[in-house]
Amino acid sequence: MKDKQWLKARMEKLWHPRRVAMIGATNSLMKWGFLILARMLGEGFAGEVYPINPRESSVLGRRAYPDILAVPDPIDLAIIVTPGPTVPAVLRECGAKKVPAAIVITSGFSEVGPEGRALEAEIVALARSADIMMVGPNTMGIFSAEDRLNCLMAPISPLPGRAGCIAQSGNVGTHMLFSGKMRGLGFGKFVSSGNEGDLTFEDYLWYFGQDPAINAVLAYVEGLEPGSDFMAVAAEVTKHKPLILYKGGRTGAGARAAASHTGALAGDSLLFTRAMKQAGVILADSNKEVVELARAMEFQPVPRGNRIGILTRGGGWGVITADACVEAGLNIAELSPQTIDRIGRLLPPYWSHGNPVDMVAVISNQAYIDCLQIMIADPNVDAIIALGANSGAHVATTVQSLRRLQAMPEANIAAFEREAQTEALGFVRALKEVIRQTTKPVLTVGRWVESKEWEEGIMMIPEPEDAASMMAKMAGYGRYLNGAEKDRQKRA
Amino acid sequence: MKDKQWLKARMEKLWHPRRVAMIGATNSLMKWGFLILARMLGEGFAGEVYPINPRESSVLGRRAYPDILAVPDPIDLAIIVTPGPTVPAVLRECGAKKVPAAIVITSGFSEVGPEGRALEAEIVALARSADIMMVGPNTMGIFSAEDRLNCLMAPISPLPGRAGCIAQSGNVGTHMLFSGKMRGLGFGKFVSSGNEGDLTFEDYLWYFGQDPAINAVLAYVEGLEPGSDFMAVAAEVTKHKPLILYKGGRTGAGARAAASHTGALAGDSLLFTRAMKQAGVILADSNKEVVELARAMEFQPVPRGNRIGILTRGGGWGVITADACVEAGLNIAELSPQTIDRIGRLLPPYWSHGNPVDMVAVISNQAYIDCLQIMIADPNVDAIIALGANSGAHVATTVQSLRRLQAMPEANIAAFEREAQTEALGFVRALKEVIRQTTKPVLTVGRWVESKEWEEGIMMIPEPEDAASMMAKMAGYGRYLNGAEKDRQKRA
Repeated sequence: MKDKQWLKARMEKLWHPRRVAMIGATNSLMKWGFLILARMLGEGFAGEVYPINPRESSVLGRRAYPDILAVPDPIDLAIIVTPGPTVPAVLRECGAKKVPAAIVITSGFSEVGPEGRALEAEIVALARSADIMMVGPNTMGIFSAEDRLNCLMAPISPLPGRAGCIAQSGNVGTHMLFSGKMRGLGFGKFVSSGNEGDLTFEDYLWYFGQDPAINAVLAYVEGLEPGSDFMAVAAEVTKHKPLILYKGGRTGAGARAAASHTGALAGDSLLFTRAMKQAGVILADSNKEVVELARAMEFQPVPRGNRIGILTRGGGWGVITADACVEAGLNIAELSPQTIDRIGRLLPPYWSHGNPVDMVAVISNQAYIDCLQIMIADPNVDAIIALGANSGAHVATTVQSLRRLQAMPEANIAAFEREAQTEALGFVRALKEVIRQTTKPVLTVGRWVESKEWEEGIMMIPEPEDAASMMAKMAGYGRYLNGAEKDRQKRA
Repeated sequence: MKDKQWLKARMEKLWHPRRVAMIGATNSLMKWGFLILARMLGEGFAGEVYPINPRESSVLGRRAYPDILAVPDPIDLAIIVTPGPTVPAVLRECGAKKVPAAIVITSGFSEVGPEGRALEAEIVALARSADIMMVGPNTMGIFSAEDRLNCLMAPISPLPGRAGCIAQSGNVGTHMLFSGKMRGLGFGKFVSSGNEGDLTFEDYLWYFGQDPAINAVLAYVEGLEPGSDFMAVAAEVTKHKPLILYKGGRTGAGARAAASHTGALAGDSLLFTRAMKQAGVILADSNKEVVELARAMEFQPVPRGNRIGILTRGGGWGVITADACVEAGLNIAELSPQTIDRIGRLLPPYWSHGNPVDMVAVISNQAYIDCLQIMIADPNVDAIIALGANSGAHVATTVQSLRRLQAMPEANIAAFEREAQTEALGFVRALKEVIRQTTKPVLTVGRWVESKEWEEGIMMIPEPEDAASMMAKMAGYGRYLNGAEKDRQKRA
């Protein structure tokens, strides 16, 4: 990877530019030079933007310049969307202008064959000789929340937050942004790394690792250069924040597709998995899991062990979740006699007297909170999966029916609705408070984006099987951190 | 199982009752006798409803009767929500009234221990001696689309349709209804089978199997009675329609939880899986998969083999999907030279020349449709997973940016928006037409409930990993049907 001091200084320009030149900006509606510029300006980028186009006097109401050398002010970042054959000349001008960083959106380089490879080699050499740090080529752009810098090809306005994302596929990466928006995960920085002609995966990873604005690193990876610093960089990052990685090209067919896509060599999948584990990397099973894990770990500690307590409002849910936990390699905690005794005082005598704790039709939200706290306090329990954690505010269909029937005064219906909503909100806040105070993770399973939980920032995982898989991965990271911690103590 | 002729006649009364008595109907807002009645009336049940309550003269504007014998008309179905100890007397009265079918919502029976078991034995004996067919006890109710009969405890108004669902857990079952509503899967009939004191899983299964209003059977199962007719009934059903089953209690911990929940004995999981396969039952891996499979199979044929074609608008998606297909046991189809040649005429020269077919930044919707049709025509391809099948109508953020910027006349922005929408709708309709005409299944992957696809009835699977898993299961059912077909031909 690059020299760290140089990299850090340049990355500051890339992620927090004050003046950006958009080379290839245009008023033609369906071109990237229009769409990306419209997005950047429309999303409220804090800095100055200079459209560059020799055939336009203004673009989207901004004064345009024929080339970057004509811009009177210094430029921190050049975004290049002009056709491939023009890019060498454009980069030469950027070099003359002393532009420290460039994003080459343009495609048609190493991904298209030998000619493109030669062109890519040329622009990489040009960038390096001109001391320009280059993202891409063939990148789908970056997003930087702090500066409201959105120069993505995909029509997405990501939720701002603290996740950092590096994607070796622009489409897969922007799906993480979409998915995050639907699941409440905010991003601080996102990069589609493109062909990685100059900057490589490790460079971004190292930078996100030491960036205090980033609390977790998410990545889609197809291949890593042989002999890269990835393992060393990853092992450093995972000491401080989770690195959640989704690997494409795990199978022969996937690897062949990856070779055709990014030219990446996949390598041995088992070896890869083992190496990742040693570096404390969390390997996700899907794009969705990357995002859900990041969201869960944003507010939740990692478990200290793998003994899981399951709290449920319905017996069947408990069964499904116990199955899924065991299949994911977790243990179902054996509750202490004291816990059994305490819960027994809250539930009818025929309750399960064990884990999962089934509320057996006790619908009191207070009893649910009480059971949850008792389970958290049990030293035999490392983490909790809390099912049916929705507030029960779903009286909408009942209220609708009542209104339709017109058999009750509207005031009574409204009072019923209000009461249910108050109860629901009280439950959500109590649940949030329990989760905030405990040092054990509590994954809440319930219907998603349906009521107050979402607004209050409680993450609802829609399927219990997903919660079990996520918890297993969090537990794995917990084991790694414990081991790393013990190693550190031994050495000290 | 029950005598089939008797069962069929009684089931007609249960699912299509003309007159229903709600025993325990009440005006007390938070009681089931109120909530279920409000739902039933509010959802527009087509028949007559008779509230039964000795202390009310009317309930929800309907005349109430002190007991069922006081009702002047014959009753097809009694729904019972009164406390456990009252149920024997209530059933005796139902017997005297010659009620053919009853749903016992009331809980506190075999699920609560020895005393409850005795009470359940008593009511089962009573129902049988009175020739009443009984659902439950401890059921969360039924839903019958044709008659708009919704007597569910859960506040859900299911999408009407043609799926039949049998759930050995009310909570898990109603989650399928919620999930179906979110995914466009409509239900014709739903039953939470409760403790199965009288009617058992097999009875419902047989009935749904021969019911022409039901095109697929969905089930959550925790346990089957030793020596039950399940296998024989299932094997008969799967000849005519898919039976998609989710099994709780696969692991020791899950089985213990199931024993505590429904008292079901789980049995050997491997043996179970093998037996299911022999009977052509599709085993789903999650509640969500049950619903998505049913939805996919509603409009799609089963594949004749497991050679999958993958069409993608982004290289990374192709990689992920190829991995997921191989991991699910599918093969990546080797495209015929003719297909490679034909697609080559539509895509730039540097395209992958193989499967997955990556559109390599060709955003033309017509090219996508053309590639899809070419792949379908390839004899080496049994089924297709089509990624990025959204219409690309997602110009909302761009339009929003343009409006915010005020750098363009509103008329131009509106024209841009209109044009994109027209293009999107055209694509969706073309895609729909391709899917309607082909005899090979095409699973479409794309962002979910976001645009026209949803309204036009195209199912979007949000994650490619899920599409691969579903396709593998559809292929398994296809193999079974082929085998069954061959057996039939051999015997003929």
